[in-house]
Amino acid sequence: MELAEYLRAHRERQLEELATFAAFPSVSALDEHRQDLLACAGWLEQHLAGLGLDNVQLLEAGGNPVAYGEWLGAGSDAPTILVYGHYDVQPADPFELWTTPPFTPTVRDGAMFARGISDNKGPIFAALAGIGSTLAAEGRLACNVKVIVEGEEELRSDRLDALIDRRRDLLAADLLVNTDGAFLAPGQPSVPVGLRGMVAIELTLTTAAGDLHSGLFGGVVPNALHALTQLLATLRAPDGRVLVDGFYDGVLPVPEAELAAWAALPLDDADIRAQAGVPALMGGPEPSTLERQWSQPTLDLNGVWGGFQGQGVKTVIPAQGHAKLSCRLVPGQRMDEVLARVITHLERHTRDGAQLRIVSTLEGTPPMVMPADHPAVTAARTALTAGFGREAVLCRLGVSVPVNEIVDRHLGIPAVQLASSSPTDAFHAPDEHFTLASFDAGVRTMAEFLPAYAAAHRG
Amino acid sequence: MELAEYLRAHRERQLEELATFAAFPSVSALDEHRQDLLACAGWLEQHLAGLGLDNVQLLEAGGNPVAYGEWLGAGSDAPTILVYGHYDVQPADPFELWTTPPFTPTVRDGAMFARGISDNKGPIFAALAGIGSTLAAEGRLACNVKVIVEGEEELRSDRLDALIDRRRDLLAADLLVNTDGAFLAPGQPSVPVGLRGMVAIELTLTTAAGDLHSGLFGGVVPNALHALTQLLATLRAPDGRVLVDGFYDGVLPVPEAELAAWAALPLDDADIRAQAGVPALMGGPEPSTLERQWSQPTLDLNGVWGGFQGQGVKTVIPAQGHAKLSCRLVPGQRMDEVLARVITHLERHTRDGAQLRIVSTLEGTPPMVMPADHPAVTAARTALTAGFGREAVLCRLGVSVPVNEIVDRHLGIPAVQLASSSPTDAFHAPDEHFTLASFDAGVRTMAEFLPAYAAAHRG
Repeated sequence: MELAEYLRAHRERQLEELATFAAFPSVSALDEHRQDLLACAGWLEQHLAGLGLDNVQLLEAGGNPVAYGEWLGAGSDAPTILVYGHYDVQPADPFELWTTPPFTPTVRDGAMFARGISDNKGPIFAALAGIGSTLAAEGRLACNVKVIVEGEEELRSDRLDALIDRRRDLLAADLLVNTDGAFLAPGQPSVPVGLRGMVAIELTLTTAAGDLHSGLFGGVVPNALHALTQLLATLRAPDGRVLVDGFYDGVLPVPEAELAAWAALPLDDADIRAQAGVPALMGGPEPSTLERQWSQPTLDLNGVWGGFQGQGVKTVIPAQGHAKLSCRLVPGQRMDEVLARVITHLERHTRDGAQLRIVSTLEGTPPMVMPADHPAVTAARTALTAGFGREAVLCRLGVSVPVNEIVDRHLGIPAVQLASSSPTDAFHAPDEHFTLASFDAGVRTMAEFLPAYAAAHRG
Repeated sequence: MELAEYLRAHRERQLEELATFAAFPSVSALDEHRQDLLACAGWLEQHLAGLGLDNVQLLEAGGNPVAYGEWLGAGSDAPTILVYGHYDVQPADPFELWTTPPFTPTVRDGAMFARGISDNKGPIFAALAGIGSTLAAEGRLACNVKVIVEGEEELRSDRLDALIDRRRDLLAADLLVNTDGAFLAPGQPSVPVGLRGMVAIELTLTTAAGDLHSGLFGGVVPNALHALTQLLATLRAPDGRVLVDGFYDGVLPVPEAELAAWAALPLDDADIRAQAGVPALMGGPEPSTLERQWSQPTLDLNGVWGGFQGQGVKTVIPAQGHAKLSCRLVPGQRMDEVLARVITHLERHTRDGAQLRIVSTLEGTPPMVMPADHPAVTAARTALTAGFGREAVLCRLGVSVPVNEIVDRHLGIPAVQLASSSPTDAFHAPDEHFTLASFDAGVRTMAEFLPAYAAAHRG
């Protein structure tokens, strides 16, 4: 049977399976979803076996297990790829902003809506469908394939790190093929050759032993929320520039050729504004939006809270305020140095009368640059161009991808992104979705990638 | 039977009744406690009847009913007082900061701990015990007495306002005796002759159609929490001075004689710091702490929230941030003018890229000054001095007392504060409590007030 014919015949079944996969509320950040994650992993194990993979198993990682499968029939001359995805998803709150419930996958307007459908259940499912469908239609693959689908990507893949270290033999490969992430524009396939890193901090500011009545004490005691907002207001200029001393130290300039290539990309500020759903982008003309998105570090408040949030009026002077913030890092920056500089800034700008406590810090992922001339990048461009019917371009990404750094460290192999999501898919936000066109193209792309990479690897 | 003997014999029963009263979770701000408020009102109705009051009834106010009772046997020559208290309480969150559950009244270290025990269930219960015990021990009272105990004080007493307007005949009196509020120092009885007013605002700031991923969009889209903290940081100087244009316009200066009397009060900055449980008070030497507490307006953030508050890290760029704030007003300020000035400031300081929405405004209570030479003030000083065994002093209060302004408007009568709570009782905060010594003194004070006011009224 031809592959194209097979895909037509089995598309409805595959979309139903994707909906089943997306219906698991596999939220790794919330303890109450632990059983849902285990159930999702169990479903994946059966699914991998059903695709025709061998040696299928759940690798015990200490937390949520990693689903594994392999097909090694391409012979020892063919390269081995390690395909990566994750089945855990971000929390779905605020629930009231979803048009349909986040764990009731729903198809409308040519897309499937569900928490995690685009980050990353849809893309990894499509890549696996490309592998399984090729095996079913043609009886063989051009590369040896190993698959890992983990359940703690949204927690930073710490346990995957240890697992890959322990199972180097099982997971040995020539290349990581990472299905996570998104294209630079909707339907515009792109191969990133750089990723930003990430660090995070949570802090608490305390001004009194307990909350106080604003009638009794208003005007004479400090208010933790004034102290907090005044502290946090010092972190950024209105144009988004981070005001932490030395924050930009060491940032590597982007080569002129790469900057010129970015300027030629089919992506302007209006596109990015529309992707984000904002009335105006932040910052001035220099550096360009793409430079700020891909090659400049950032600092963002992710959460701020304190005092009374309920219905009505409560005239309290809050004694504590809290904030979570994170930074995206770029090549040339070290995680520990950035964390230290931000903490020093916070300490210096905490007002008299307020006590700063750093509740936690997280060294997430270091920034990375990938070799732009690697055979895998060439193969990815070829496959994406064929799969999506549009010339794939080179870019960088603003996001952090922990697993790329992990496999570099433990397996000594490079990574290539073979994404199929778009930046308009509402990652980490209400009404996350994955278009059916992306699904179809994602399946075709993986089917194209296997022979393309085998050829590039030989040649 | 002597009153003192009666009080000794019935103290344990009265404290048990107070614990029963305090166990009702009568939180008027939260809809889910509606039945608890009705149950508490029903208990109060029975309690008033048990004290020997006549014409006991629940006055339908449209929301939570008002418990009413009267004793009019003192004759037409004697004055009539209208005793006021409230059975509704503030929300008890954050629950985890309570040593014992907020609605399980517990006696330890010489005090009863419960939400609302000091604001205002303990003081109104003690005043009623003074009336009921006098009636039981002596068979009569020196004044005619009407009692109202409302259930929406923490909501601003809007419906009480309308009710008092409708029931002017039933509630006609010479004086409001208000048991709400607190002394200026623990165990130091005081009679306030001025009260601050209150207005409140809730706002939302929006920067995007939805939350965004900080990897994809960090550095190029505005973040509602940066916009919010930068907006809110403009409201106050580090010393607490409000930076809203024209905020202090019209504030009446305090007469020199009153300022001199404040300086002589047994209350210094160290006391106020200890009451508040803060390491340092806010502001410089001028104006004095008491002036800032009693005769200066304030602005306090009561709640700020937005983005991710859960466990772990969520690298989101929040699209919305929220804040609740309130101002305390002093004589010379108008509620509508202050609200308009604060809103103008918020509009002017909202950054490009952020949209400000004023979710709600509240004209709470106007500021008030009471006549310092009124017979009721004299009687209150006499009664408090006898009841607490310590010379009562004149002061002002930082808090707002809506009912005083309401009875002035509808019944044309002045109000006097006959409090028994202390500023260390943790009003509106975890571990709210009411000392047993304050309870005993509060009972005696009301018993002393009736003949003292009857005499002053005649004389």
